Amino acid sequence: MNKATNITLQQAAELLAEHDNFLILSHVNPDGDTVGCAYGLCGALQRLGKKAKVACSDSLSERFSYMEEAVEEQRFQEGFVISVDVADRSLLGDLEKTYGDRVGLAIDHHLSHRPFAEKVYVDDSAAAACEIVYDLVKLLGEVCLDEITAKCLYTGIATDTGCFKFGNTTGVSHRKAGELMDYGFDAAALNYVLFDMKTKARIGLERYVFENIEFFAEDKGAIIALSKEILDSVDTEDVNGISALPRQILGVEVGIVLKEKKDGWKVSLRSNSVNVQEICGYFGGGGHIRAAGCTIKTADVEEAKKLIKEEVAKAIEELLKKR
Amino acid sequence: MNKATNITLQQAAELLAEHDNFLILSHVNPDGDTVGCAYGLCGALQRLGKKAKVACSDSLSERFSYMEEAVEEQRFQEGFVISVDVADRSLLGDLEKTYGDRVGLAIDHHLSHRPFAEKVYVDDSAAAACEIVYDLVKLLGEVCLDEITAKCLYTGIATDTGCFKFGNTTGVSHRKAGELMDYGFDAAALNYVLFDMKTKARIGLERYVFENIEFFAEDKGAIIALSKEILDSVDTEDVNGISALPRQILGVEVGIVLKEKKDGWKVSLRSNSVNVQEICGYFGGGGHIRAAGCTIKTADVEEAKKLIKEEVAKAIEELLKKR
Repeated sequence: MNKATNITLQQAAELLAEHDNFLILSHVNPDGDTVGCAYGLCGALQRLGKKAKVACSDSLSERFSYMEEAVEEQRFQEGFVISVDVADRSLLGDLEKTYGDRVGLAIDHHLSHRPFAEKVYVDDSAAAACEIVYDLVKLLGEVCLDEITAKCLYTGIATDTGCFKFGNTTGVSHRKAGELMDYGFDAAALNYVLFDMKTKARIGLERYVFENIEFFAEDKGAIIALSKEILDSVDTEDVNGISALPRQILGVEVGIVLKEKKDGWKVSLRSNSVNVQEICGYFGGGGHIRAAGCTIKTADVEEAKKLIKEEVAKAIEELLKKR
Repeated sequence: MNKATNITLQQAAELLAEHDNFLILSHVNPDGDTVGCAYGLCGALQRLGKKAKVACSDSLSERFSYMEEAVEEQRFQEGFVISVDVADRSLLGDLEKTYGDRVGLAIDHHLSHRPFAEKVYVDDSAAAACEIVYDLVKLLGEVCLDEITAKCLYTGIATDTGCFKFGNTTGVSHRKAGELMDYGFDAAALNYVLFDMKTKARIGLERYVFENIEFFAEDKGAIIALSKEILDSVDTEDVNGISALPRQILGVEVGIVLKEKKDGWKVSLRSNSVNVQEICGYFGGGGHIRAAGCTIKTADVEEAKKLIKEEVAKAIEELLKKR
């Protein structure tokens, strides 16, 4: 039972102008977009003379530690609660219990947004929620933006678009990134940290992937399974983006990465052409047409591989018939 | 003895409007920027009702084959010759002999441009020569631009900036990329081909690099040598960007890649902090502060490694003292 009201961005700006003592919430397993929104908006509100702080059920990744420079630590009793890039109240994690019913404004770009806040602004054409927050902050006044808030907002756009490579990138994403870069932060140094820097453990993991990858369906399918032992030998951060590797190989239409979890094997599919959302749906999962996931509930890796390979091979065969 | 005249972009546009039967020249070992300029400008001139064709001493890479769709094959006696992204007449390669003295207009973005054309337009603030050609084409009229010419020009900006990651990327690069994307080509599919797709040979080469890399100077230096045998086992394209790999490792300040050539070992240095231009200058090479190269004239790989490691270790030591 939800009585969320959709509002315009102008109304959202007015809401912020009217209120004070803001608490801004990010989603669990925070990525560059949700923390970029939170720290960028928090810094902007503080520059406007408001009191504001950010909160998340998980800690800020070392990779994004520079964002803390955008905000001043302020102590106050939180009044107005905002969620950024949070598609569902359950994604507030440990904070859901306390704040799930108290969110005054949700700002999001997920098509799948399930309203839980009193007022909602969702624009699913935005590649990143930071694109929306940037527009919102501009409505609050140019005074809100400086080098470090711009850097936070740029981070969200850059990370959610894979540094302007993914299909969600629009001309608008580029224009906003360009305007944000004009605030003068060192985007190249930032992008190095966000996209190029690899730990030795990560390099070892990539090597393991390419050494152990198996091809099937006339080399148009590629599959790799990562056991709990291997996953535990590296940091969580080192595993980010691993699912994209098999599909990078020339000729591969569908790349499959299996990760061992408590309840079975978590499967990530990446595709150039095949609808992998359908395949994952068959196993009770979901996602997007070119990137989807599911869990196969067996401890037996060979069984999990066989099941997913069969479905993928069928889809590839159908694709080849059409060509 | 050169009498090149620097002209404005408006004058360059007038020059193109006045002339016809254009031949557009790219540089040797053509990259995305030089061919993006050539095919983009050629297509634009043809859309303006002019006759135009492109030429390069080397063939067009398979990766850029879509650019051929931007132009119609036309037969005519070339009148006005234009060079794009060519910093020196010697970079015309085999075409220098015929056209080196006949270039009417050179469009370039290299600070190091050595004038050889009658008229010259150089803007070294442009991340890519395609940024300049885009402005030039707009001056010729909106009719010149369509989806495929926009795709060619976007390619140059994307490739020269490492998909908007490198330090040469500006707010202007983003704005122009955004405007070009609005013409509707599939930028994500293009970026996949330009940046993510890897041949199996390339993956094997990356594995070789990370398996055989040696660390020195308290793991702040990383070095790998690629013998002629290894380099010959892959395509030239597969070697592109390999020089960037060692520096990607967390903690590495200077990455060194040696490639065996006829006259010795070609050295590529990439750095986060150290001035590698100075180091390469010491060996008679040059480049930029964070990316430079030189050749060490010995067939002995151990000697070459020792010589370059010594200089790099010294520079890293000085850097650490300053910290």
